[in-house]
Amino acid sequence: MTPASARPPGRPRAGIDAVVFAATLKTVHDLGYAGATMDRIAAAAGVAKTTIYRRWPSKGALIADCLVDALGPVPVRGADRAEDMAAAIRWIAAKIGEPGVGAAFAGVFVDAVSDPGLREVLSTRLQDPYRRALEEAWGEPEHRVLFFIDVVVGTLLHRMGMTGEPMVEADVNALIAMVGLHFI
Amino acid sequence: MTPASARPPGRPRAGIDAVVFAATLKTVHDLGYAGATMDRIAAAAGVAKTTIYRRWPSKGALIADCLVDALGPVPVRGADRAEDMAAAIRWIAAKIGEPGVGAAFAGVFVDAVSDPGLREVLSTRLQDPYRRALEEAWGEPEHRVLFFIDVVVGTLLHRMGMTGEPMVEADVNALIAMVGLHFI
Repeated sequence: MTPASARPPGRPRAGIDAVVFAATLKTVHDLGYAGATMDRIAAAAGVAKTTIYRRWPSKGALIADCLVDALGPVPVRGADRAEDMAAAIRWIAAKIGEPGVGAAFAGVFVDAVSDPGLREVLSTRLQDPYRRALEEAWGEPEHRVLFFIDVVVGTLLHRMGMTGEPMVEADVNALIAMVGLHFI
Repeated sequence: MTPASARPPGRPRAGIDAVVFAATLKTVHDLGYAGATMDRIAAAAGVAKTTIYRRWPSKGALIADCLVDALGPVPVRGADRAEDMAAAIRWIAAKIGEPGVGAAFAGVFVDAVSDPGLREVLSTRLQDPYRRALEEAWGEPEHRVLFFIDVVVGTLLHRMGMTGEPMVEADVNALIAMVGLHFI
């Protein structure tokens, strides 16, 4: 019996997605981004590799969708700008600290440096929904929101790369204060 | 004749290092960080793989030394703090825009997320000399200088990952203004 045929008949797509996303984050957490091959992710999820490739044509596409799922919507309300920015920064700082998320995030960006197709996937599937939500909530032009995302996500990922740990709260507070002074 | 034996007798170590560093950046630029294996770097440099492993025990160590060589010293003088910070930010923004440097930089950080030994290499060989130079020039405590490095390098690398291009001057100026307001 192949792993794929082990899944109960009629198991909904959302169920498979959730299993694969959880296996993706666990594999990236355990083996690093480069070590988390599609083969190993399929094995960890207990599904056939073809099941994964039917849904995601590349590792980059899988990681992007997995991150969208792990992050969920950004908590902005558009009421108090300073409060909103602080909430958004605390939210992404906490998410990047979850097992596998920071490493998946950082890894897919690096692959994107030399892969224009992957940049398109990242930009449209991962970044654009957040960019539009922030533009609408804050009434800021695109280039300012992209700068906000670069500063916040880049800083948090760099810290994770250098220390292997999420940023401590005192430094997250410094980031909130710095970005607040610039944007508000 | 093997590639290694083609090198002129008595060629100094500095010569070999320069050849390997140039081949490393070119290979990372052409093939991406993951694609730039030690095999391919050795082939591009025209040296035997053992020649490379004798000098650098791992790809991470080679990339770290290659980046130290490509970056050179940070241009700080400790006179006018605002001018100094602006000069340091412009310097690293330009360096990260050089072919291969941004991709090598980003790639080695991502590998480090899941590799404590590599984090140690990066921290001691690459980051510490710059951290100490900035601490001395600006009289700032370690945690503030590390925060400065996270913000500046992280932001520039994130932009490179999302767009495949270095940050445009207007956004580098925004970064200088933002960091300046926070630190000065």
